[in-house]
Amino acid sequence: MRDAFHDDLDKITDQLVEMTRLAGSAVSRATTALLDADVHLAETVIAADDELDTIRTELDALSIDLLARQQPVATDLRIVVTSMRMSSDLERMGDLARHIAKVARLRYPDSAVPPALSAHILQMGQIAERIVAKAGSVIASMDSTAALSLEQDDDAMDELHRQLFDAILHDKTDLPRETLVDLTLLGRYYERFADHAVSVAQRVVYLVTGEYRSELDLPELDHEEQEDSRVAL
Amino acid sequence: MRDAFHDDLDKITDQLVEMTRLAGSAVSRATTALLDADVHLAETVIAADDELDTIRTELDALSIDLLARQQPVATDLRIVVTSMRMSSDLERMGDLARHIAKVARLRYPDSAVPPALSAHILQMGQIAERIVAKAGSVIASMDSTAALSLEQDDDAMDELHRQLFDAILHDKTDLPRETLVDLTLLGRYYERFADHAVSVAQRVVYLVTGEYRSELDLPELDHEEQEDSRVAL
Repeated sequence: MRDAFHDDLDKITDQLVEMTRLAGSAVSRATTALLDADVHLAETVIAADDELDTIRTELDALSIDLLARQQPVATDLRIVVTSMRMSSDLERMGDLARHIAKVARLRYPDSAVPPALSAHILQMGQIAERIVAKAGSVIASMDSTAALSLEQDDDAMDELHRQLFDAILHDKTDLPRETLVDLTLLGRYYERFADHAVSVAQRVVYLVTGEYRSELDLPELDHEEQEDSRVAL
Repeated sequence: MRDAFHDDLDKITDQLVEMTRLAGSAVSRATTALLDADVHLAETVIAADDELDTIRTELDALSIDLLARQQPVATDLRIVVTSMRMSSDLERMGDLARHIAKVARLRYPDSAVPPALSAHILQMGQIAERIVAKAGSVIASMDSTAALSLEQDDDAMDELHRQLFDAILHDKTDLPRETLVDLTLLGRYYERFADHAVSVAQRVVYLVTGEYRSELDLPELDHEEQEDSRVAL
């Protein structure tokens, strides 16, 4: 029975890593679609989100089945419950990438992002891609020290988000209102994407160390504290 | 053993209902703080969010403990897992109310909402308050038909959100950029608050009917489909 259990756990881990790969691909393509005003690419991101949703549903079903059949306790129980939370984070990251793609589709044939801010949004997209790739490595390796390096990427994302608001509010050119709305939402989508990736990594730390720090338990709060202050800019 | 299990389940239900009460109070007071530029009231909302976070942490610990000690299967297992998801939704609703309160605090002594849109935001706040109260009743009664009535409130919220974007984009007055950013984010906070309340109610439907409809499984997607189209305005 224990072997079957660990086979299932391996399957869950593999699927979580696959979800990080899909979420990373989605945010990368969504960013390109946004900056190149590539509506076909945007459509592929929007369509591909179903796959992430399906994996998440299957993973949750497998987890519940595992709980019922194997009745794990202690660490094994914690791993299963935590995996369900990770799949929820990763599914949400897919949604956020899809939101970005939808902004691209909405403004086609224009780009939603003014040329002066293209490099800035590109950087946010690259950090998003990097942070989810790292989250995947952390899940695969269960290396809790590697999880810490995501925090630096998240700090960089915070800084870019702050600068984006700065640019929105103080740009000397006459930005159309649609652009202000789009950029406000895009900033939030990238920021939340990174928050969820950090949350995934922190859950691995929790599994390895067995310690709930308050920020592990409620990771979103931590990050959004910073985010809120950025709106103040 | 079964009695102890059901005592614990009753406790979980009571705590979930308490969370709906706290989230409702938070969004109601946040809306008042926003419209009256009442910074003290905003501070109470921001401070009170800790209580929701604490209940959520305790609830999750109780649920995991319950899984380990009682090893429930079938419906009982489903209830425990679903309860953890509900507490996650409700905790997030508290975060969103706190975000609204932070916008109020940020713009003090001004109101973040221009007078012409006060009545509109008030309506969004009232629907948010009503929908979470209904979610509480649905949890307490386990009445899956009552859950359907939340969808109507959510439709009303969708319509108000759409109208808000319309107002932002087509208002004839010279709205400051800060106001455009604030209103874009506030609209999203209220909309997401309602989405999570619907998600809570749909999880009760799932428990009662035992059927995963795709929108029960992934409730956010459904609602955000509509939301995205609103950004198109």
